[in-house]
Amino acid sequence: MPPISEQNRQPSTTSLSSKGDKVIDPSTYFSTHVPPSNLNASKILVSEFVSKNSKINRPVVLVTSGGTTVPLENNTVRFIDNFSNGNRGAASTERLLEEGYAVIFMHREHSLQPYNRHYTHSAERFLDYFVAGENGEVQINLKYKEKIQTDFEKYSKAINNNQLLMVTFVTLSDYLFLLREVSLTLAAMKRNAMFYLAAAVSDFFIPSHNMSEHKIQSREGNLTLEMNQVPKFLKPLVMNWAPDSYIVSFKLETDPELLVPKARHALSNYGHQIVIANMLHTRKTEVWLIEDKKESHHLQLDSKEAANGVDIELLIIQELVKRHKEWINKN
Amino acid sequence: MPPISEQNRQPSTTSLSSKGDKVIDPSTYFSTHVPPSNLNASKILVSEFVSKNSKINRPVVLVTSGGTTVPLENNTVRFIDNFSNGNRGAASTERLLEEGYAVIFMHREHSLQPYNRHYTHSAERFLDYFVAGENGEVQINLKYKEKIQTDFEKYSKAINNNQLLMVTFVTLSDYLFLLREVSLTLAAMKRNAMFYLAAAVSDFFIPSHNMSEHKIQSREGNLTLEMNQVPKFLKPLVMNWAPDSYIVSFKLETDPELLVPKARHALSNYGHQIVIANMLHTRKTEVWLIEDKKESHHLQLDSKEAANGVDIELLIIQELVKRHKEWINKN
Repeated sequence: MPPISEQNRQPSTTSLSSKGDKVIDPSTYFSTHVPPSNLNASKILVSEFVSKNSKINRPVVLVTSGGTTVPLENNTVRFIDNFSNGNRGAASTERLLEEGYAVIFMHREHSLQPYNRHYTHSAERFLDYFVAGENGEVQINLKYKEKIQTDFEKYSKAINNNQLLMVTFVTLSDYLFLLREVSLTLAAMKRNAMFYLAAAVSDFFIPSHNMSEHKIQSREGNLTLEMNQVPKFLKPLVMNWAPDSYIVSFKLETDPELLVPKARHALSNYGHQIVIANMLHTRKTEVWLIEDKKESHHLQLDSKEAANGVDIELLIIQELVKRHKEWINKN
Repeated sequence: MPPISEQNRQPSTTSLSSKGDKVIDPSTYFSTHVPPSNLNASKILVSEFVSKNSKINRPVVLVTSGGTTVPLENNTVRFIDNFSNGNRGAASTERLLEEGYAVIFMHREHSLQPYNRHYTHSAERFLDYFVAGENGEVQINLKYKEKIQTDFEKYSKAINNNQLLMVTFVTLSDYLFLLREVSLTLAAMKRNAMFYLAAAVSDFFIPSHNMSEHKIQSREGNLTLEMNQVPKFLKPLVMNWAPDSYIVSFKLETDPELLVPKARHALSNYGHQIVIANMLHTRKTEVWLIEDKKESHHLQLDSKEAANGVDIELLIIQELVKRHKEWINKN
């Protein structure tokens, strides 16, 4: 693969500063930002959930899902977001539950959620799922009833069996604080824990102390935003927070030249177990599993499967569960 | 009110360029951007809707609602968004329907929608509205049934009576193209048409030809984003697209010093009928109606109303409908 040219890395609207910008440490990030208000409540829920599942020796996986926002103002009117609607994480969670895992589903508020995902971001609106019966009484539209019945049963079972816990974040900062807490708690399960880091986390942010206090005004011309690189939190996660667990990260690109090299670079940099590499426009039908010292493993839906609405997460989770079991037994 | 200081306008993370940046014309914007793929389909729907309501002499209002996104890359991974979830527009639409208006509800995809808004962004997930009956069959949870019955009836009536049409946008560009088409069609109703521009439209954008083709890379340090000011589309709307209609715009600020002066400035600049001014943190309980040559009119929920979940849109729409009627009769 050819080296990345300067031109590729420096599109006209961005300038990559060379005056010795340093990416801050994760610890510096935590000491200069305020934790989210729901952190403690989430921590208690996670701790109870891990404890219950540990007792019955059920493996637990943390699935992170959806995008993080980066506020541009302290009184936030505007923020940077990304394309992720959370389908990858939600679909993977359904498969992991089927495989007998307990799942901590740590997701962006209002992003797609397991079993519920089929109803919330579709062309139908909430009230479109109902009709008036003969007596005028509102009831579930028969057209949808069978599907709702199936999803309702699976969803209820997962919740009632302590197999599914949902915790939320919105901003990058919420995400990072919550990730650290959940990781430290889940780490106690050692090799029985998996981390499936499917959330699309921002790469750039504006440190709180540099942010505009009020809504940025527009009447004086162009706007220049200076953003800092987000510290790489995978490093402390792998090295310190949960060093004994099976860790799966994701790499999404739009330039095919960069995909595999960047995935391999992440593996050698952070020393975790596996990277799932995917391209923005084919991510629903095709991924590559990248592991150290192995050929990359290509997974793809055939056209019939894709047309029938099979989720590629079916294939991804099958492969991961196999690898996680082998990895547990090997050690 | 004191003049705005340089310091207020120039927070440390933004620089307001002074090298003669010119805001482009709306016409330049349209000639250099690609219309959304659903534009023609939406145009046909709007045209039929306006025609049907014209025939029965029902006034029509365009409600715009939710935020627009501004992509940072042509293969979009990241975009700038804003805080709006669309509640203002959705709640106002419900009141306008009650007042006998037909409503074109032009909203950000998946933002809050009339009657459906009570179910889609709440703590309950879709499947939480159901329970298993005695025979195990899924049914509507009795706890929610009465509310769903009421909302379902109102929603169905509005749709079946041709009183409510929903069209969607996502990006700033989608919004601007759609706004122009809808305005030109609705303008035929002259004074019988109202424009209620509640959408939170981006002030800054990156012109398509300046955008990075691929996902912006993070490993080389800081990121600088150069953004241009969005042309002021209220001007052609008021002057050319719908010069005979009643036009309501919104002004949201976080700095109380700026709110009323900016609202009055918009009125004198664009020459439309009314600005609804509101502060980010009190927008759900308090607004000011600003009209040319009149004292501003303050609307506020009392603490009991706020606690009981009364929407301030009840007060806003009452006042607007009164003004729209007076304005129709005066001319």
